[in-house]
Amino acid sequence: MVTDAQQACFEAGIKFGSLYHQFAGTPVSPSSTRSLETAMAEAIENQPHCESVTVTIHDDRVADAIDHENGYTELTGSLMDVEMAIRYADVAVSTRMRMVDGYPLMELVDVDER
Amino acid sequence: MVTDAQQACFEAGIKFGSLYHQFAGTPVSPSSTRSLETAMAEAIENQPHCESVTVTIHDDRVADAIDHENGYTELTGSLMDVEMAIRYADVAVSTRMRMVDGYPLMELVDVDER
Amino acid sequence: MVTDAQQACFEAGIKFGSLYHQFAGTPVSPSSTRSLETAMAEAIENQPHCESVTVTIHDDRVADAIDHENGYTELTGSLMDVEMAIRYADVAVSTRMRMVDGYPLMELVDVDER
Amino acid sequence: MVTDAQQACFEAGIKFGSLYHQFAGTPVSPSSTRSLETAMAEAIENQPHCESVTVTIHDDRVADAIDHENGYTELTGSLMDVEMAIRYADVAVSTRMRMVDGYPLMELVDVDER
Repeated sequence: MVTDAQQACFEAGIKFGSLYHQFAGTPVSPSSTRSLETAMAEAIENQPHCESVTVTIHDDRVADAIDHENGYTELTGSLMDVEMAIRYADVAVSTRMRMVDGYPLMELVDVDER
Repeated sequence: MVTDAQQACFEAGIKFGSLYHQFAGTPVSPSSTRSLETAMAEAIENQPHCESVTVTIHDDRVADAIDHENGYTELTGSLMDVEMAIRYADVAVSTRMRMVDGYPLMELVDVDER
Repeated sequence: MVTDAQQACFEAGIKFGSLYHQFAGTPVSPSSTRSLETAMAEAIENQPHCESVTVTIHDDRVADAIDHENGYTELTGSLMDVEMAIRYADVAVSTRMRMVDGYPLMELVDVDER
Repeated sequence: MVTDAQQACFEAGIKFGSLYHQFAGTPVSPSSTRSLETAMAEAIENQPHCESVTVTIHDDRVADAIDHENGYTELTGSLMDVEMAIRYADVAVSTRMRMVDGYPLMELVDVDER
């Protein structure tokens, strides 16, 4: 047996793994952060049960990560925060990704069975 | 509040999204299916709470999908089945991906709270 | 010995392979085509020697490719055309990708050694 | 007009961009380097005009890059060397990728018009 809340959490995880591994490695510079944020959010919002995605790529971290003359770096978890809202049946799940101890931690913030 | 079972299901979803979006699009032919299966399984098994991953890329489907002279196609969900075992705390989760109605459905098969 | 024109063509190829394999598999629907086009172009324009990138994702092809209830498909070469302008030293290279006989063909259109 | 040598260099670039952006971000640990090397090489060898690909992922660099408790890192150019042999018509192209000044430089080593 799988509960609606468990299924909702599974769906939330799928979206996080998808977002991260689809876009990690994308060339990024401070001039392309906004378009990448928007595309990432709109791409993942296409997936089922995904209500909203907010991606924040930190321009200052991108600038700091550019350590060679070419003027860009590759997107990695350390450069961004992500928040997502998932709904499955009557369950609303809030999730986020942020850096914790040098690791881009994906977290369940709240599971609300209404 | 998030239960261990919900967290286990979230972790299971992350692995599925990761596997799919990291490797979708990889050039594949019947001569490279075995190495790709192994690499996909070993890559995702590195992730936390992932006990085992089995990837089966169907040679006959790969051969059928090669529709141009170049002799290869790109990996997509329709060419493979995946099974994963996840453990978080005392919860064991079994998951699989398989084609259902033309869509590569990722499913929670069992959530076992021991 | 490697000529500037050969180096320019190598650089052009890198950009095409990068664009294709970074973004293939991205969830896409008619409502997210514009943001994905922009992000793809701006991401690859970050790479060295890349002067401009134009990505056209065809909404009608995306709509036709949505063959299940979930309302989205995955980006693949058959859904888009790409044009790029590369400059290396005094050499300008024009390239494009478009569907030819069912295969997304990446082509050198012109190599101009000024 | 495009010469065979220019076309060969374009093909070489495509393979490098493909390899890098398909596999960058893959979870990797010292226990999964061999399978990933093999899968990367065999995948790209499927592409047209690609005679051979050798990928060397350095176990010591992977171990050094694991900076958190989870025991794995993500594949990036700094962890590997790549060599490729491309043939187009009568032109043989040798290429490699290696770290130069902190940047994973993709290089044309030789273009041999026989």
